Amino acid sequence: MRLIISKDATAGDISSVISLARELTDDPGAVAVETRDGHMVVSVTSNGDPIDPIAFRSLGCIETIDESYLPYRLAIQNATGTERFKIELPSIQATIGGDDFVVMAGPCAVEDETDLLEIARIAVAAGARLLRGGAYKPRTGPYSFQGIGEEGLEMLSRVRNETGLGIITEAMEPATVEKVSGVADIVQIGSRNMQNFPLLKEVGMGTVPVLLKRGMSATLEEWLGAAEYILDGGNPNVILCERGIRTFSRHSRHTLDIGVVPVIHERTHLPIIIDPSHATGAASRVPSMAKAALASGADGLLIEIHPNPERAKSDGFQAITFDQFDKLMDELKKIATALGVGI
Amino acid sequence: MRLIISKDATAGDISSVISLARELTDDPGAVAVETRDGHMVVSVTSNGDPIDPIAFRSLGCIETIDESYLPYRLAIQNATGTERFKIELPSIQATIGGDDFVVMAGPCAVEDETDLLEIARIAVAAGARLLRGGAYKPRTGPYSFQGIGEEGLEMLSRVRNETGLGIITEAMEPATVEKVSGVADIVQIGSRNMQNFPLLKEVGMGTVPVLLKRGMSATLEEWLGAAEYILDGGNPNVILCERGIRTFSRHSRHTLDIGVVPVIHERTHLPIIIDPSHATGAASRVPSMAKAALASGADGLLIEIHPNPERAKSDGFQAITFDQFDKLMDELKKIATALGVGI
Amino acid sequence: MRLIISKDATAGDISSVISLARELTDDPGAVAVETRDGHMVVSVTSNGDPIDPIAFRSLGCIETIDESYLPYRLAIQNATGTERFKIELPSIQATIGGDDFVVMAGPCAVEDETDLLEIARIAVAAGARLLRGGAYKPRTGPYSFQGIGEEGLEMLSRVRNETGLGIITEAMEPATVEKVSGVADIVQIGSRNMQNFPLLKEVGMGTVPVLLKRGMSATLEEWLGAAEYILDGGNPNVILCERGIRTFSRHSRHTLDIGVVPVIHERTHLPIIIDPSHATGAASRVPSMAKAALASGADGLLIEIHPNPERAKSDGFQAITFDQFDKLMDELKKIATALGVGI
Amino acid sequence: MRLIISKDATAGDISSVISLARELTDDPGAVAVETRDGHMVVSVTSNGDPIDPIAFRSLGCIETIDESYLPYRLAIQNATGTERFKIELPSIQATIGGDDFVVMAGPCAVEDETDLLEIARIAVAAGARLLRGGAYKPRTGPYSFQGIGEEGLEMLSRVRNETGLGIITEAMEPATVEKVSGVADIVQIGSRNMQNFPLLKEVGMGTVPVLLKRGMSATLEEWLGAAEYILDGGNPNVILCERGIRTFSRHSRHTLDIGVVPVIHERTHLPIIIDPSHATGAASRVPSMAKAALASGADGLLIEIHPNPERAKSDGFQAITFDQFDKLMDELKKIATALGVGI
Repeated sequence: MRLIISKDATAGDISSVISLARELTDDPGAVAVETRDGHMVVSVTSNGDPIDPIAFRSLGCIETIDESYLPYRLAIQNATGTERFKIELPSIQATIGGDDFVVMAGPCAVEDETDLLEIARIAVAAGARLLRGGAYKPRTGPYSFQGIGEEGLEMLSRVRNETGLGIITEAMEPATVEKVSGVADIVQIGSRNMQNFPLLKEVGMGTVPVLLKRGMSATLEEWLGAAEYILDGGNPNVILCERGIRTFSRHSRHTLDIGVVPVIHERTHLPIIIDPSHATGAASRVPSMAKAALASGADGLLIEIHPNPERAKSDGFQAITFDQFDKLMDELKKIATALGVGI
Repeated sequence: MRLIISKDATAGDISSVISLARELTDDPGAVAVETRDGHMVVSVTSNGDPIDPIAFRSLGCIETIDESYLPYRLAIQNATGTERFKIELPSIQATIGGDDFVVMAGPCAVEDETDLLEIARIAVAAGARLLRGGAYKPRTGPYSFQGIGEEGLEMLSRVRNETGLGIITEAMEPATVEKVSGVADIVQIGSRNMQNFPLLKEVGMGTVPVLLKRGMSATLEEWLGAAEYILDGGNPNVILCERGIRTFSRHSRHTLDIGVVPVIHERTHLPIIIDPSHATGAASRVPSMAKAALASGADGLLIEIHPNPERAKSDGFQAITFDQFDKLMDELKKIATALGVGI
Repeated sequence: MRLIISKDATAGDISSVISLARELTDDPGAVAVETRDGHMVVSVTSNGDPIDPIAFRSLGCIETIDESYLPYRLAIQNATGTERFKIELPSIQATIGGDDFVVMAGPCAVEDETDLLEIARIAVAAGARLLRGGAYKPRTGPYSFQGIGEEGLEMLSRVRNETGLGIITEAMEPATVEKVSGVADIVQIGSRNMQNFPLLKEVGMGTVPVLLKRGMSATLEEWLGAAEYILDGGNPNVILCERGIRTFSRHSRHTLDIGVVPVIHERTHLPIIIDPSHATGAASRVPSMAKAALASGADGLLIEIHPNPERAKSDGFQAITFDQFDKLMDELKKIATALGVGI
Repeated sequence: MRLIISKDATAGDISSVISLARELTDDPGAVAVETRDGHMVVSVTSNGDPIDPIAFRSLGCIETIDESYLPYRLAIQNATGTERFKIELPSIQATIGGDDFVVMAGPCAVEDETDLLEIARIAVAAGARLLRGGAYKPRTGPYSFQGIGEEGLEMLSRVRNETGLGIITEAMEPATVEKVSGVADIVQIGSRNMQNFPLLKEVGMGTVPVLLKRGMSATLEEWLGAAEYILDGGNPNVILCERGIRTFSRHSRHTLDIGVVPVIHERTHLPIIIDPSHATGAASRVPSMAKAALASGADGLLIEIHPNPERAKSDGFQAITFDQFDKLMDELKKIATALGVGI
């Protein structure tokens, strides 16, 4: 990032810019001051990574912020802080990124059609707009349940027809994107694949909306860089999803970086939703984080529900029961009303 | 932590316990299975640190969870998930940990009495109950503004008398605890001092409520261990404060670990408040995090406001202006009403 | 010996199994309890020797007696702490995981054939055994140099013939694995693809050795789980590579987790090498880390060198010059001699 | 030379200063711009040599010409990349920061005098120069063994007289610094107290060398800022100690940030030593890290040894036995010889 200082800035003003830059980078070598065409130019990097310019915007003495070398430009083209990109899902008459808080609920993995239909009926009755569920599952080791594949896609398709819920499900490799896109209203790219660039390019060539989960250790720059691969391919329908990051903190499975919500709204026009289930890894904490997500300004939720969490083949302990989901949806509706948001 | 398995548990049940333990510890050596008096006992550590038992409570086959060796016992003695400890501040008729969401607002550092009085009047008018502001300031280097010391305490005292706001301010070493306690309704222990054990012992000998900020890299266990030093000294009035943790994520100053709010309510009876100002380090993101804090179930806020953030000698860029504060308080009141919480 | 407990066994039954195992081994560390596919598994060793299972056959609750139970059973099958797996590279008469410290040097990306040949000649003269260089490059944003693809593979092949250096280069998607394997002595899987399971399965079906870089936020379990996908596919030739992890620490690009070296040697039979260039992101710090890698017991280095680092299209600031490389190799040889290691 | 710019200088004025500096030095890296106390500061060097300030005197916007500007100006005053500060310990004829690798070994906590004397004799025989051991112990919870206090100091003093080993032991609060300094050749400031500023000021008023452990989540800037409190107090004898940082990685207790060693040598003249025992938390991994420390260029080790690690009251599992220590010292001596370092 290069900060072009206005010509009438005082030394005190410029001091503030440099102090902040040093504070943000923790590296004296990261802040360089040059002159160009009679302007002072402060350039800031951090071990080669770009720095978020937002903190500098409130400082009056900066004429322009030159971000031309950033790894993304489409991701931030309509970011005005107020105007946001609306992703329309016409077949279910929903909009993500507008005035509604869109809830996507369902099991971690698609397993059994009877269960799936039951879950879908509960979800739609409580106010969810999409059904989540993985037919293909990325798993840490090769001996774990890996999803039921195409059969699962067909189940999702039938449940979609029966309930009117939209479908969000994951594609794990370029070769299956077409099949998944045929069934899904939103194609999910999982955390582990956030930087699977051939996969990003493949979904970028389509028009089906893509939910791009943040990698467990992805910086904001890397996340937006990944989004840019999709946008650059021609698909403008990117939804970001925060699902917890890797930190030293062990009281929860991951650390929900809820602070990224206002940053995403400042930096980009793309919608941001929260996955409280993977973030916490514990059902008892999901409602608290779901409400926080709504209040923070997120555009929706991706949440796991299951009639019998202990029986689920994958990540059961983070799914909430139907009763817990009903109660949560009631609370979310009250908060949404207070905030003037639809649900 | 030792999990005593009930005698009629099945192997499938026990498998779930062990799988979860392995998942949480990422260390095969951390999970040991023994037998004791005909019971199976699964003991779980993590590099010598205790593990949060909450994830195991939902598993039906566990008879008891033996936490007798934990570094804290008073901190969790009344944790029932519903009954909470109420810390009364009679002189300002406020209760922390009850049905109210208590807002503490003010500048980072006490600098000028005219400013301080103006801030206090705005704060009380908008609904804040306590005035925050440091007379003693811990600073990274010896050449930064270190606070105005006793003079600041006197200013706070006069402003207290004039506005009726309670005072929360920091003590940095055992030798000044008595003076700080003479002025403050709540004594603050800063992040850098969370494990300053002589200081914790000193405030533990008093009765003035203590706000204990979490260290930047403190685990939950270490935080509750620090609280235990105060409780063990005889002072039951401990308020926990989450203010962001150190992670790889650089889009904000620290990462607000909001997921700790429901965990604190599950594990302990102590109130938990959120400091969105230090967590984000950027004024524009403070309102989003403040609303999320309320919705997540936190008991209050510690927030920085300043009439002229750019003029503040310490951390000005994270303070919100009076107008931003008024608007935020309005929104908080609406959410609080929706949630049935007072403010 | 591993005892697979039947799913309907009671806790009492399992206690009997464990008690008997303790009696027979007289060593508390010899009995471990794990789970696999929903079964409990009791594993029993005696100073590394197998235990005669006959005594357990009379206990009704044991379903089978098996040899493997972890999510990565192949990755640890020969781990004895002393015996290690040797990966032979016959065409260059090198062995990784044996008594030699194998140095792989070269540019980050393959760009120009004249440069590449010059680098290769310097590398081989100084004692390197393989030439590194990416023909396909994963890059954070779509607008960065993405490598020259097949043309780069052909260049590598020609330089290989001319210098006798082995080749290590990256495959980024299943579709290019065959082409890369045709040229490479070692196929590299990059950090971002550590959990690209379709890619891991693809290289697992071959026999060319695979260098598996650790993901930036991968736990040891996840890393070994990823290795298991390759091993389980039938390819035993997996080399692990630590290249720095994501932490709060910003003085270097990543934090080199050198402490994983002895852990890998304790837990698995697979060789472990270090990439000091990506870990530090700064040429001036590479020699220090390279020497530390050797002294810590690592099996080799993956290191960037370039005749003119500032001209490199990718990551130039972390490449060391030829002179620095010569000096480093001299020092490494002295340390290796002191440690009784070949180079 | 550092040019302190007056606060009412314009950006144009400052541009002139920088342009002139660039002209005079003909080296882009020679001109750095920083801030101090609200002033802009332009620092100019020329291959380490001072620049004649005369040319700048005619420029009106320069307030003063000064020698110091960083939050830690003393910590970097002699950093030239080659010249290092030697801390002499005359009573044991040792130098830290010179050509020797100084080993400090002993138990975590001082417990029993017979044991302590035995440990000391083994340590001195193997080549250690100082005996480590805590009389005061910071512990996570109030119910853990807190050290034996003054009695421990007396034991250390007697063992010192008997063996000729120097003593390094921890001070936890300002009130005990004098007593500890009376016994210790080096006073240790623990990780938890790295930002206990009153304690730092207290040891800064003495002359006894201070070993300053890095906080678990301390950035380099914070660590050097803490060192500056001691240096600024008048005590130049600061030894830095890396002991592992908090990261997501759980295979070891902390993550040894060995990459900080070359950074410290680039940035400051202060010696840096490594504590492999706390970093790994596991005895079996200590030798590997100790050897890596030496090869990386560190100035010494702080290492735990114990005749019977399982009996130790504090952190026993990270102490190595006498046999392991003897073997390690042999290996270190070989590597040291290869590197031209004394031990």
